[in-house]
Amino acid sequence: MATSSRTIEGRVAGVYVADGEVASTPRPELILTYAGVPGDRHEGLTRKSGAREPWYARGTPMRNERQISILSTEEMAEIAATLGIVTLPAEWIGANLLIEGVPNLTALPPRSILMFPSGAAIRIDGDNGPCRISGRSIAAQTGVGKHEFDFVQAARGKRGLVGWVEREGTVSPGDSIEIRIWSQADYAG
Amino acid sequence: MATSSRTIEGRVAGVYVADGEVASTPRPELILTYAGVPGDRHEGLTRKSGAREPWYARGTPMRNERQISILSTEEMAEIAATLGIVTLPAEWIGANLLIEGVPNLTALPPRSILMFPSGAAIRIDGDNGPCRISGRSIAAQTGVGKHEFDFVQAARGKRGLVGWVEREGTVSPGDSIEIRIWSQADYAG
Repeated sequence: MATSSRTIEGRVAGVYVADGEVASTPRPELILTYAGVPGDRHEGLTRKSGAREPWYARGTPMRNERQISILSTEEMAEIAATLGIVTLPAEWIGANLLIEGVPNLTALPPRSILMFPSGAAIRIDGDNGPCRISGRSIAAQTGVGKHEFDFVQAARGKRGLVGWVEREGTVSPGDSIEIRIWSQADYAG
Repeated sequence: MATSSRTIEGRVAGVYVADGEVASTPRPELILTYAGVPGDRHEGLTRKSGAREPWYARGTPMRNERQISILSTEEMAEIAATLGIVTLPAEWIGANLLIEGVPNLTALPPRSILMFPSGAAIRIDGDNGPCRISGRSIAAQTGVGKHEFDFVQAARGKRGLVGWVEREGTVSPGDSIEIRIWSQADYAG
């Protein structure tokens, strides 16, 4: 199966800097540089590999393709419903960018480009995998210990995207987003 | 439709530095840094946008996701056959890396990772589009003017990949390549 390239629209619902252990803090504006978000825990042109890259020895220097964490309002509401909680704020799990109006955001294909009115642009590396560290952050907020484990299951395919800064600029809540999706085809080998 | 993540193998058939207008020159070893290939026309952590990014004004600074040009021995042979020429050397159209043993190399999905014995790694941005500049380079070599236009048609879906350096290191002809392919699913929206 193959799909054609096209452009879809979304809107910025919130922007955040990950200045804590896991959680992030809402801001009126997000600054994007080639190194990511200034002062953010994931800022850097390079990073060290971790558990997500078992094909590299832990701590191997590599280019940082995970500068920006992007979540969807709609997917967060679905995760909250599964966990049985009223709301799951994006900042509990360290989002930089909360987007609304994009169906199945987590399924946006790698190489997609998010373009903002300031000229800033983010290139998508791909979907983010839910982990227990985020689950623990939620459990600490809700006071329900099992949310640490339940989150990993509830957030599968809904934990948003990671990407890197393609063009520098700023992003603010209310900004429209133009999303360029490339043509896709399954690789059969 | 969806496919699972997996790892496949390939082999390096040649390495080249693009030190000319279009063409590249074979080398015994390719050095990969976070900025790409030292001395190569596409070296840089950033680049200026061009005709391939009509969504940006020409000359806009952007991160360089097109540091490395990767071709397939098998696909080059197919293009040569279509053009009716005996051989189409990878250096005529500015390859940095010629790979053999990977079926439908150009169809490898964005986000795939090419890992080499030295520790060097390249992350794939996606397929490269054939252009008339490459066609002109071939026509200059073959002396057949219409190859400028015929190449664009003959190379559709076979013009290889572009990507950026994820881990620094060296690559040499004969190296084995481990290719990590992520799970894929069509984005239906």
